[in-house]
Amino acid sequence: MTDEEVTQHEAAEPVDELAAVVRERDEYLDALQRLKAEFDNYRKRVARDQQELAARAHERLVRELIPVLDDLERALEAASLHEEAKLEDGVRLVHRGLADLLVREGLVEVPTDGAFDPHSQEALLAQPSEADEGTVIQVLQKGYRLGDRVLRPARVVISQGLSGLETSG
Amino acid sequence: MTDEEVTQHEAAEPVDELAAVVRERDEYLDALQRLKAEFDNYRKRVARDQQELAARAHERLVRELIPVLDDLERALEAASLHEEAKLEDGVRLVHRGLADLLVREGLVEVPTDGAFDPHSQEALLAQPSEADEGTVIQVLQKGYRLGDRVLRPARVVISQGLSGLETSG
Repeated sequence: MTDEEVTQHEAAEPVDELAAVVRERDEYLDALQRLKAEFDNYRKRVARDQQELAARAHERLVRELIPVLDDLERALEAASLHEEAKLEDGVRLVHRGLADLLVREGLVEVPTDGAFDPHSQEALLAQPSEADEGTVIQVLQKGYRLGDRVLRPARVVISQGLSGLETSG
Repeated sequence: MTDEEVTQHEAAEPVDELAAVVRERDEYLDALQRLKAEFDNYRKRVARDQQELAARAHERLVRELIPVLDDLERALEAASLHEEAKLEDGVRLVHRGLADLLVREGLVEVPTDGAFDPHSQEALLAQPSEADEGTVIQVLQKGYRLGDRVLRPARVVISQGLSGLETSG
């Protein structure tokens, strides 16, 4: 309607342009408001999802630990009844259960055969030895990693080589 | 500057209005584009964060299980050396370690004193008993919940009451 009116006189072009720009402006404002609302909702959903996700990852693992706890309690029962063989079997069962679970969860033992690796190992001691200098000769505590991350370095003794032997000998 | 010029003639108002609307339109378009970019970045970051978050929740718990595994391995060592007392102590240590960890993680044992609760308990058997009808008289397997969720119902025997006793007697 307004368009038809304005085409009748000279002012037509500017008014037409104004109407077009007003329309554009209103469309952008509308899109902006809708996007803002969408973004807000998204943010809220993400906050909920993240809590949920963390809770679920956690729940799954806790759930898997329940049978380990069961086996452990049965082993304790055997201990209180002085059933040594049953206790020992029970402990083996618990160990296998927990070790398997942790492997499934991605836990990997840090390898300790070969040269000392400062990224995954901690040298607590260096000793003269016939092994090549700088190689691991004893593991005091196992190390573990999960994916790329070292959760605990292996605590090791490394060789000082034969020169160390001669010095101490 | 433009404002001063346009106030001099009749065309002033429409041109002025057009300029203002154009400015508004451009501002909204600009804001819209910036918000779109921000939203996109946010979405990408969220995707990364969620993976990270799940991995971290998981990592923390796996990390806490390593000392339990250590204690278990020491207990196994004691077993292989036939050090029974040490083995038993070791198993107690492992049990306390794992049970404490699970309590810290929010695991709660399903209570079984009192009336049977179908939401957290599973009745495997009903037996005549002097206990009130419908109460739990024996726990065959402990149940656990985490927050609101029952991870495993307690498996129980419930009382049929004295009428049950008379029938069977």
